[in-house]
Amino acid sequence: MNKAYQSLERHFARLSSLNDAIGILCWDKEVIMPHGAAERRAENLAMLEGLRHEILTAPEMADLLATADAGDDVWRRANLAEMRRLHTHATALPGDLVEANAQATAHSEMVWREARQNSDFKTFLPYQQEVLNLTQQIAKAKGEALGLSPYDALLDSFDPGTRQTDIDPIFSRLSTELPGLIAAVLEKQNSLPAPTPLQGPFLVPQQEALGRKLMQQLGFDMTRGRLDVSLHPFCGGATHDVRLTTRYEEADFLPAMMGVLHETGHALYDMGLPADWLSQPVGQAGGMTLHESQSLTMEMQVCRSRAFVEWVTPLLRTEFHIPEGTPSWQADNLHRLVTHVAPGFIRVDADEVTYPAHILVRYELETAMINGDLALKDLPAAFNDRLHALLGLTVPDDRRGCLQDIHWPEGLFGYFPCYAMGALAAAQIRTAAFQQDSQIAPALAQGNFAPLLKWLRTNIHSRASSASMPDIIKDATGAPLAADAWQAHIRSRYLDRAPDA
Amino acid sequence: MNKAYQSLERHFARLSSLNDAIGILCWDKEVIMPHGAAERRAENLAMLEGLRHEILTAPEMADLLATADAGDDVWRRANLAEMRRLHTHATALPGDLVEANAQATAHSEMVWREARQNSDFKTFLPYQQEVLNLTQQIAKAKGEALGLSPYDALLDSFDPGTRQTDIDPIFSRLSTELPGLIAAVLEKQNSLPAPTPLQGPFLVPQQEALGRKLMQQLGFDMTRGRLDVSLHPFCGGATHDVRLTTRYEEADFLPAMMGVLHETGHALYDMGLPADWLSQPVGQAGGMTLHESQSLTMEMQVCRSRAFVEWVTPLLRTEFHIPEGTPSWQADNLHRLVTHVAPGFIRVDADEVTYPAHILVRYELETAMINGDLALKDLPAAFNDRLHALLGLTVPDDRRGCLQDIHWPEGLFGYFPCYAMGALAAAQIRTAAFQQDSQIAPALAQGNFAPLLKWLRTNIHSRASSASMPDIIKDATGAPLAADAWQAHIRSRYLDRAPDA
Repeated sequence: MNKAYQSLERHFARLSSLNDAIGILCWDKEVIMPHGAAERRAENLAMLEGLRHEILTAPEMADLLATADAGDDVWRRANLAEMRRLHTHATALPGDLVEANAQATAHSEMVWREARQNSDFKTFLPYQQEVLNLTQQIAKAKGEALGLSPYDALLDSFDPGTRQTDIDPIFSRLSTELPGLIAAVLEKQNSLPAPTPLQGPFLVPQQEALGRKLMQQLGFDMTRGRLDVSLHPFCGGATHDVRLTTRYEEADFLPAMMGVLHETGHALYDMGLPADWLSQPVGQAGGMTLHESQSLTMEMQVCRSRAFVEWVTPLLRTEFHIPEGTPSWQADNLHRLVTHVAPGFIRVDADEVTYPAHILVRYELETAMINGDLALKDLPAAFNDRLHALLGLTVPDDRRGCLQDIHWPEGLFGYFPCYAMGALAAAQIRTAAFQQDSQIAPALAQGNFAPLLKWLRTNIHSRASSASMPDIIKDATGAPLAADAWQAHIRSRYLDRAPDA
Repeated sequence: MNKAYQSLERHFARLSSLNDAIGILCWDKEVIMPHGAAERRAENLAMLEGLRHEILTAPEMADLLATADAGDDVWRRANLAEMRRLHTHATALPGDLVEANAQATAHSEMVWREARQNSDFKTFLPYQQEVLNLTQQIAKAKGEALGLSPYDALLDSFDPGTRQTDIDPIFSRLSTELPGLIAAVLEKQNSLPAPTPLQGPFLVPQQEALGRKLMQQLGFDMTRGRLDVSLHPFCGGATHDVRLTTRYEEADFLPAMMGVLHETGHALYDMGLPADWLSQPVGQAGGMTLHESQSLTMEMQVCRSRAFVEWVTPLLRTEFHIPEGTPSWQADNLHRLVTHVAPGFIRVDADEVTYPAHILVRYELETAMINGDLALKDLPAAFNDRLHALLGLTVPDDRRGCLQDIHWPEGLFGYFPCYAMGALAAAQIRTAAFQQDSQIAPALAQGNFAPLLKWLRTNIHSRASSASMPDIIKDATGAPLAADAWQAHIRSRYLDRAPDA
């Protein structure tokens, strides 16, 4: 490696430190900040983002990137490639486009909040149109700079290295097979006893204590992270300081518990990134699909499995002081509760079987919008048509249709696929882990997550951004990412109703 | 004003935003952060401090300051003067001196923590010597840049505009008169009944609820601030986000309560700074003496007064569910508890009467150290001699002597005076406020702080850094800062034992 490369590592270590500061300030905004500070905090964050952009796009940076030589070390080479990718994303856009987009998305989000409440797509349309126009310009400019199609350039912001050519064959097959699979699952479910809801209230301190116990059971290091409360659960924070949040309802502890398990999956990924590279681009998590695969491996693959439910049921009875023999508090009923399938309008409330349908709809429509093949005025009807085709549901209003998500109003096009890709990846990863190490499944049945976590650390976490998501999945599981493992998982859990591992 | 000045306002608004980020990260470090993140957080903060220094010392900044014209507006003129002062402080030191000092103080503080526990001045001496040598160099360099004596240059870092010529006559008189005053107070106290300690335990949630009630009673805006817990109580946070902390002992609620009242005084100052200038240097609080004067006006002048104790006693009984007639829970006894005088070794535990003695000792010794008139090896003996002379106590070991404070190990020379100057200023300010607005005292006797707060906002808070501390005190009270009001206050509260207002 040469001096230019060494100098780049110093600049990017500084950017990493700035990212930490932004991470803590964002967390604080959602969890701690008194509301009177909201406007000022937005200014603080914009200032820090501005500094980050300035450092990344300084003329010196371009010179260093042009002359840097990372030598033969594969991690340094991958690091330099990531530096160049980040620099290209940052410099691809003229300043006035960035500024116009920041303003348009801020307005659009504000109008959307009210439009959603009123199911009023018409009022919202011009704001969404402005955001879409700007996103198309951004996609084009980034595409030209990166040598990618416009939509691939957007994908690359969230999921480096993932292309439409990775997604299309998978989603196309899912699109064909999902309706039949859902119908079969529902038919089977109807032949079995309905789950009995658990009687609350469940006190928040008890739910919180349970969450902390389970986080640590999964492998979360409480000396390097926290659990708190926020309106929208997330996993954030900074290096060596991974902070996840949940929200509690006293009537039902399962949403908060499953939320904590989900966010803990994200957190374990962040905690497992390679120590030597934490301050460098190559040491960061490898995009949103991999991140979602880690949360869903924990939440969906493992913690909604029959084996985990068997293990956790006595613990839940103890935590909530439920007598051992209470009929609804047996593993059978709890497992039916956490694997209940019910097609619905709202993506974020969907079960794992119907969830991909929501993403297929959005992917199809957002690629058409970016490519100019779908006019915004036709979006509501198209959304409702596609949801009906996949889930058999008639969307009653746009609030429960194309207005439900914040992504498009905020200009987040190219983000949705990672949710479904992450679910498929989770199934493929968990299946491979169970096959490659026969100790993992029996350990999990005892509540011991260590062998699984070790496998994930070795095969996913420690690789960080040293390779692309498709390569990491292929190396870890022996095959390119596909829907097969996910479909097998759904069949095994919902159709065979055999105790799934 | 010209373009250069306008450009400076933009640069300093950015610095103000950086200060906010640093403020929140520092608060988080003391209140929230998991301990495994300590090292990384130190790096994050050093990076942000580095960015601040870089922006402040950029060549462009010097050019702008050289050519800026603030026009005729007195606030803009004062703002430009503050900008120049900050720039001079930042550029006065060569980079290697800043770096050497950062390392030396980090080592010194670490060694001090153990040396203090072991009362081992000898081991600590070389580390303190290194810090002193560097502080002397810093004082000299800053003094030359600012046109000040070395010690005045240090003072100016904490208390802009305050000089030894302001402090010396006041401290000199105090030094002569304090021993006699303390003796008289103790004699009077011995002639009165001893206070009866209150029986706990006092549950933390009740203490916290009491603290929040009192904060709001004083005028704290809960939509722009918080109350939390930390090992060392402080008032920090950011613009529109003033965060104070306390710590609770179940055996006694008075320390936490008085601590909250003290920090609320600081917070009200920050909350009362002029809205139009919050992002500019002139809009910041006017140094540590004024800041301490605001905390002590609330804690010492008002909240340990007989009138406040009369008002708060029924509230305390209600909060802690104490029957009305309980003998120890009457205003007489509570007032004796919060005004008990007892000379002791430890500065931070001192009552208001003996407190200035601790500062007189430190001021005399630290000026001698900076000027080279006191060798470090002679510090312990000199410290013990002076404390004996002022308080009549024989210091048993250096842990309770010259090793007790973190200031010198951290290189904070020139900081101590503000504690005593703040106490004197508080007495002078409160006395002037009562004289100028006859509504203030009767309102306080009803627990109504609004008239006092209005007076402080008008005469102290809203002036921010638009004038020097000596000028702000003189304008507010009609006289230069002196010890007279403080001595009158001590005589009135402790010798006359008349119900003090």
